[in-house]
Amino acid sequence: MIIGKVVGSVVSTRKCDNLVGNKFMIVEPIPSLRMNNRIVAIDKIGAGIGEFVLVAQGSAARVGCDMEKAPVDAAIVGIIDDGQDLE
Amino acid sequence: MIIGKVVGSVVSTRKCDNLVGNKFMIVEPIPSLRMNNRIVAIDKIGAGIGEFVLVAQGSAARVGCDMEKAPVDAAIVGIIDDGQDLE
Amino acid sequence: MIIGKVVGSVVSTRKCDNLVGNKFMIVEPIPSLRMNNRIVAIDKIGAGIGEFVLVAQGSAARVGCDMEKAPVDAAIVGIIDDGQDLE
Amino acid sequence: MIIGKVVGSVVSTRKCDNLVGNKFMIVEPIPSLRMNNRIVAIDKIGAGIGEFVLVAQGSAARVGCDMEKAPVDAAIVGIIDDGQDLE
Amino acid sequence: MIIGKVVGSVVSTRKCDNLVGNKFMIVEPIPSLRMNNRIVAIDKIGAGIGEFVLVAQGSAARVGCDMEKAPVDAAIVGIIDDGQDLE
Repeated sequence: MIIGKVVGSVVSTRKCDNLVGNKFMIVEPIPSLRMNNRIVAIDKIGAGIGEFVLVAQGSAARVGCDMEKAPVDAAIVGIIDDGQDLE
Repeated sequence: MIIGKVVGSVVSTRKCDNLVGNKFMIVEPIPSLRMNNRIVAIDKIGAGIGEFVLVAQGSAARVGCDMEKAPVDAAIVGIIDDGQDLE
Repeated sequence: MIIGKVVGSVVSTRKCDNLVGNKFMIVEPIPSLRMNNRIVAIDKIGAGIGEFVLVAQGSAARVGCDMEKAPVDAAIVGIIDDGQDLE
Repeated sequence: MIIGKVVGSVVSTRKCDNLVGNKFMIVEPIPSLRMNNRIVAIDKIGAGIGEFVLVAQGSAARVGCDMEKAPVDAAIVGIIDDGQDLE
Repeated sequence: MIIGKVVGSVVSTRKCDNLVGNKFMIVEPIPSLRMNNRIVAIDKIGAGIGEFVLVAQGSAARVGCDMEKAPVDAAIVGIIDDGQDLE
């Protein structure tokens, strides 16, 4: 998993049926953790912009979040307590 | 998922049977999002060149798009509204 | 798999139900091995901070650790003997 | 998927039983597409050295090519028409 | 798949039960192939240090090597004939 900060969201009106009802958040990995590039993740937790979140990638995002048939490869699966200490 | 702009397409006449009928789009991630390299993605939505799209990668592209038996590892699964604001 | 050193942990109170009861460790790959960026991995072994660990990524972390339904993409699956020799 | 040029092949006499009968091609992503590093891909199409090919990676290469039990993570699944225009 | 040279091995006494009996080799991708960073791979073939090997990554390493329940994401699945010619 990676840790990142929610820096925005995107809206997609024309999308796969299996994606309907999901929020798409832009997550930026924390520089101090020397992690990777920004990704777009489904939000399963209700994270707000500015919050520090735990993101699962790959099939984990789909299988682990009861979305087995959705084309999803990243999901916010936790909100980090005291995430600002990581910056 | 990543966000990119459709910058072109490729044609493949000799290909796996399970790929017949699919369009192959070249997608370039948006620089301002500091995302990764270009990839080729199946288009499940009808995206045009110049549109900003949401791309799912890995098994999500196959399982989440009802193409379980196709050798596909990336799919355009949504078109971003106001994508040009991301550039 | 990659080898890294456990450099910290994070706490996530609001998280997916399937993640409850897991510890989230921050793992830094060993520079001398020219490996990748830091990741967050579930700890299945009881690794302590400063220990050198073997991390499995992708579906291996989920399927190989009896967590098939959890949104987990990285797991500490071994502790390296004499890991400090790798630094 | 990525697009690359077949730049060579490798031979492996001692290999997993599930790999017997496959050709291993070295594929170099096209620089103009700013794609990634070279990989080795199973050839399911009969690509020749110098041809431009479409490569599926991850479980797509295995599941999508009727090789579910083979340790394969990349497969040439199409040959690009007019690939030289991409260089 | 990637091609690399076996440059060492690591020992892990405390590890997941599903990993017992496996050897962990450190594999360094060949520079001339401009491939990626070092990884740790299970050895299914009996590769020695200094040999050039073919490594499958992701679920291929698990499913393709009859280790479906093991937390393994990379496996040596072949030894390259005349690998030194690649250096």
